[in-house]
Amino acid sequence: MSTPQHRPRVIIIGGGFAGLSAARGLASTPCDITLLDRRNHHLFQPLLYQVATAALSPAQIAAPIRRILRSQRNATVLLADVSSIDPQTRVVKIKPAPGDAAADEQSLPYDHLVLAAGVTHSYFGRDDWADLAPGLKSVEDATAIRAKFLIAFEAAERATDPYERRYHLTFIVVGGGPTGVELAGAMAEIARSILTSEFRSIKTETARVILVEANERVLSTYPADLSDRAKRDLESLGVQVLTSSRVTHIDPRGVEIRIARAPDLPANAPDPEPLRVDAATVVWAAGVKASPLAASLGVPLDKAGRVLVNADLSIPNHPEIFVAGDLASVMQHSAPSKPVPGVAPAAMQMGRHVARVIRAELVALSQGQSPPPRPPFVYTNKGELATIGRNKAVGVLGFGLNFPFAGFFAWLFWALVHVTYLIGFRNRLLVMFDWVWSYVFFSRGARLITTDQHDRAAPPQAR
Amino acid sequence: MSTPQHRPRVIIIGGGFAGLSAARGLASTPCDITLLDRRNHHLFQPLLYQVATAALSPAQIAAPIRRILRSQRNATVLLADVSSIDPQTRVVKIKPAPGDAAADEQSLPYDHLVLAAGVTHSYFGRDDWADLAPGLKSVEDATAIRAKFLIAFEAAERATDPYERRYHLTFIVVGGGPTGVELAGAMAEIARSILTSEFRSIKTETARVILVEANERVLSTYPADLSDRAKRDLESLGVQVLTSSRVTHIDPRGVEIRIARAPDLPANAPDPEPLRVDAATVVWAAGVKASPLAASLGVPLDKAGRVLVNADLSIPNHPEIFVAGDLASVMQHSAPSKPVPGVAPAAMQMGRHVARVIRAELVALSQGQSPPPRPPFVYTNKGELATIGRNKAVGVLGFGLNFPFAGFFAWLFWALVHVTYLIGFRNRLLVMFDWVWSYVFFSRGARLITTDQHDRAAPPQAR
Repeated sequence: MSTPQHRPRVIIIGGGFAGLSAARGLASTPCDITLLDRRNHHLFQPLLYQVATAALSPAQIAAPIRRILRSQRNATVLLADVSSIDPQTRVVKIKPAPGDAAADEQSLPYDHLVLAAGVTHSYFGRDDWADLAPGLKSVEDATAIRAKFLIAFEAAERATDPYERRYHLTFIVVGGGPTGVELAGAMAEIARSILTSEFRSIKTETARVILVEANERVLSTYPADLSDRAKRDLESLGVQVLTSSRVTHIDPRGVEIRIARAPDLPANAPDPEPLRVDAATVVWAAGVKASPLAASLGVPLDKAGRVLVNADLSIPNHPEIFVAGDLASVMQHSAPSKPVPGVAPAAMQMGRHVARVIRAELVALSQGQSPPPRPPFVYTNKGELATIGRNKAVGVLGFGLNFPFAGFFAWLFWALVHVTYLIGFRNRLLVMFDWVWSYVFFSRGARLITTDQHDRAAPPQAR
Repeated sequence: MSTPQHRPRVIIIGGGFAGLSAARGLASTPCDITLLDRRNHHLFQPLLYQVATAALSPAQIAAPIRRILRSQRNATVLLADVSSIDPQTRVVKIKPAPGDAAADEQSLPYDHLVLAAGVTHSYFGRDDWADLAPGLKSVEDATAIRAKFLIAFEAAERATDPYERRYHLTFIVVGGGPTGVELAGAMAEIARSILTSEFRSIKTETARVILVEANERVLSTYPADLSDRAKRDLESLGVQVLTSSRVTHIDPRGVEIRIARAPDLPANAPDPEPLRVDAATVVWAAGVKASPLAASLGVPLDKAGRVLVNADLSIPNHPEIFVAGDLASVMQHSAPSKPVPGVAPAAMQMGRHVARVIRAELVALSQGQSPPPRPPFVYTNKGELATIGRNKAVGVLGFGLNFPFAGFFAWLFWALVHVTYLIGFRNRLLVMFDWVWSYVFFSRGARLITTDQHDRAAPPQAR
């Protein structure tokens, strides 16, 4: 790397767990950091399903990135949509600001680049399903799912035809990972406890929630007995869990599900017919694909489009470019056959690792020394946790212990861990308050249908 | 009125202050109530400007209507968009439910109808201004204004040209009633205190907030000395207050303001040239117009489209139809030249009045007696209150006292009154918490830019 004649410039793309951790890790390093994000807020994704199910308000799990970094004088935050990266000329190109008269792209030069632009949901080539089965990655996604979910009960209450009522009260969740399990559990619970007293024509507890998972079991990265426990817990809430099953078709009236062949079916027997389920609400919680920015680096990607990084998280032939967070495809240092999972703790650890490497090199550089050798990224697995509903969760304690646990204790532990990792003392207090309130009073604090499906020009019905 | 052979059916259109008060007032009356609203939530409009200025989350000032009425067994709540009312056949027609296969309108018959559908903002015939200068009536309006307001600072931070920076940091509020005064005050305050430490290229305190009011003074329904006080308070926060001024043109780059002729200008002098102000953000807080449902009643309307009701709030020739809330145009019983104002307390009083009248008649009917004479609606003016900023408010205590007050005491009183009238103990606690927190830590809890202007299909930049 050439010695820059100016103060070193570090650009970080993405204000999620990885990007923020990298920025904070460089707080006392003599460099100018520019953090770019398309959103003005850092989002605590692990609790996003609670916004989608009306338990929390968006602002409770989001914090303005520039507020988080306001005291870090070497960091500048820009709301900017990155259009591409040019590793040869070492610039990041950003789209013009909204409403800006100057319609040209801006180019921002860097000495070090940290790409932490994350992933979005993948429809496995069926992008036409995006409108029919919204995924859950942003605040807007969450409020759109919330509106769809709440409108379903409203439409059922109005429906005069029993078939229509059934259609509105059927909810399909595609994907049995943590997000799908948590969504399905929360939906069933709300229908069975919170809403029951509020409707006159329908019995909300007859709502049908179907969780469809392609693998043999839900939470497939967890130990098998915890997957079984999660399935039983979901079923006790009334969720129908279909494993080894795939959604093969989605239209506005419902889905087709192909259920796996029974193991005792003779080899020459035909595949079972796909199951048709009419449902007003389909939610997508299956599969991820990388930010398209990964492709502009010009280096090998994995099949989800993530960047195959070196052991130190830099990319081949460009030691000045790092990829951190969900966008990085890297194997665990201690178990080279297991990938580092796309979870918040891994992203934070990657961000801190990258900051340490950059810091060590900039310090050496400023002292006229040659940069120290780069250590590889070592992932510390702290464990996994997923909640299913009231008093119900499953988890594995990490740190090499691999201790599985479930039930009330796991649920309480889940709540504590998530509150601890939330950014901002105020948000921690408010989320705890809402959880205790919901637990005691069986209510949900954010049951708002707000959607641009409404005609904004028409008047509201009351002041 | 003919004696119905069934249990009397009361339809209430609108779940605002008037509609909800009417429904609650009929709780122990033997009748079947159906409350219709386009939204699933009752909205506490007086605090909506706090959502627009990122102080509160939407869910804190909204409550699901069916949750509010869940224990009232004679009340059914339907999420429904009313298309028209037919007073001759006594039916309300509602549009099909969202996503409903049956595309026909439904007809709901009534014996008594309470129309409480409210008002929306009026652009005085310039409906093309709606996109350029959003008004503030719904949650979606508030989050859209919040996004525009916050994006302006982000765009200014990115701008390289001083003119562009100025354009982004100029905010126009059209209308100097309570909403306009409160919006302008909050915007100036945020720019001058909360955001200052978070930006690197701009000084947020140089932001320019201009309040444009057509009348000679802001808060024109208040006593003149309070208007002066409010103007001084606004100016001390840095707001430029232009009274006797009108916005005559709006385009994406700004507005034209026609300022009144100076009183000492000779009669033959030409009018002053309109003032051109370039501004990225224009907010509309001027003028109201009635829900178009008023017109379907076929009775005389005032020039804003409100229904000219009888003294008992029924409409001419249809004693079974009442209009309550902002949509009713009626003079004060004690001061027949003064209209009942379009404020929340008046709406609640009207709703309760209508419920009392209906109840008395239904009770008489069920006992085979002739209905008692209807009392006129008597408005009790409890006073007026508007807040300008931290420790700053103006108000008049009503109840016949007409006692004006201002400053810290008025501000505290404003907060107490608003928290008291919020629906739900949980919301009261949370709003108080957020106010105390903002007061102590000079922060705003809900600084989220969420907008469908973002391309929903593009991936978020971080997980």
